[in-house]
Amino acid sequence: MTSQSTWYETAVTDLTDPHDQRVWSVIVSLFGDMAQAPGTRISGGTLTRIIEPIGIKPEAIRVALHRLRKDGWIESDRMGRVSRHVLTEFGRAQSAAVTPRIYARTPVMAEHWHLLIAEDGNTQVLEDIMLSHDYIPIGRNVALGSGTPTDHAGALLVLAISPQTAPTWLQDRLCPQELRASCQTLLAATRRVARSRPDGWTPTPLQSATLRTLLVHRWRRVVLRQPDLPPAFYPPDWAGPACRESVMQLLDTLPRPSADTLSAPG
Amino acid sequence: MTSQSTWYETAVTDLTDPHDQRVWSVIVSLFGDMAQAPGTRISGGTLTRIIEPIGIKPEAIRVALHRLRKDGWIESDRMGRVSRHVLTEFGRAQSAAVTPRIYARTPVMAEHWHLLIAEDGNTQVLEDIMLSHDYIPIGRNVALGSGTPTDHAGALLVLAISPQTAPTWLQDRLCPQELRASCQTLLAATRRVARSRPDGWTPTPLQSATLRTLLVHRWRRVVLRQPDLPPAFYPPDWAGPACRESVMQLLDTLPRPSADTLSAPG
Repeated sequence: MTSQSTWYETAVTDLTDPHDQRVWSVIVSLFGDMAQAPGTRISGGTLTRIIEPIGIKPEAIRVALHRLRKDGWIESDRMGRVSRHVLTEFGRAQSAAVTPRIYARTPVMAEHWHLLIAEDGNTQVLEDIMLSHDYIPIGRNVALGSGTPTDHAGALLVLAISPQTAPTWLQDRLCPQELRASCQTLLAATRRVARSRPDGWTPTPLQSATLRTLLVHRWRRVVLRQPDLPPAFYPPDWAGPACRESVMQLLDTLPRPSADTLSAPG
Repeated sequence: MTSQSTWYETAVTDLTDPHDQRVWSVIVSLFGDMAQAPGTRISGGTLTRIIEPIGIKPEAIRVALHRLRKDGWIESDRMGRVSRHVLTEFGRAQSAAVTPRIYARTPVMAEHWHLLIAEDGNTQVLEDIMLSHDYIPIGRNVALGSGTPTDHAGALLVLAISPQTAPTWLQDRLCPQELRASCQTLLAATRRVARSRPDGWTPTPLQSATLRTLLVHRWRRVVLRQPDLPPAFYPPDWAGPACRESVMQLLDTLPRPSADTLSAPG
């Protein structure tokens, strides 16, 4: 075992989510990162070889693919002995919807914020809006949103705001300890991996794909946990911006494998 | 009975608060309007002659004066057979605090508004602030205030706002139907009284004092019910501005009686 393969193995371990990782969600991250373009197929063999190093068994991959097909995310076909998987239009739309937020090098900060305030004890309209729009709950009857207020048929008090500071309870509510810790841990892992990388190491396309999958998957679980908040709403120890930068820098050194690599039957 | 005395009697009836009027509160209105200057005394006889036309019995006046003395609002002394009453410093301060809001010809509209939002289930700090500061409750954990936010030791979310519209439930909460009705009724009464006034009628100082007392007392009970709200928070049928104008126009035609009149033993 060379020091380079040792480094790669350590990097895989280090970048693997220490918490329970759902296989279907890893596969969604992988397709979103490498096979979001219409018609980009990933063969069953390639999928297994990208994901197996993470410690996910072929049987778990088969179960996850079954679920993703059932939920309308992917379609599969078979050419001889080779199975191939592709995002459905629904899956591609879902993926495309969050891609800008995952890959933005600087978060897209909303310029205009507003509050929706419901009457005490009469929060149905607000709850309905929150189900289908990107609002951030501030309290039982108060929600924060960006851009133009959602139509609410006059049921809510709407107030334009420019948040300047936020109390600790709100920062804790929007960025719970456990999310802050996940972000800190990912930041530390990406920095360790980047620092320890042997000079001149070049990943194989599959190694690159595995590391990209790990990185995108973990970052996605941090960055998509809440909408982009006004800066004042983040706690002082929020490592989000540093983590974003570190993740993007590492991704830059890991080329996306070509469509041919992905669809290779091998 | 001349048409002028008939008009005066009708005006008194029309301007008398149709709802239960607390005598001590009528006396507070009277002192605030005519005897707020330090040392301005009102004799017991004059007080009775101002208030009796409203239908308040001398015995009720004695009880109310006793209560106001006990609460530290007024002091009484006696010169021979003449009792005299004067606002205490406390009473004068209380009176002075609300005088600008009662007599303003255009309401003093705050330029800057802000919200205080408490954490769900942790509203103690907000409740404490609302006890001692002029905040308007919007909900269980949301309050509206003007000017510079009150110090709250970082316990609350503070947001500068410019209210543009308000939903019906909020208008109803801040200006309940019964307050709107009181305002409408007072507006109608002042307009009727002003319109029906015989040409060239000049009130005696005591008639003027009685009508002023009635007017100020009723308007005070409307205008001091809530802090001055952002215009958007008033319901469309809120008659406040028209009522204010009509009350002030009528007051302008009713000269304040002189200190001599008030302290006359007669």
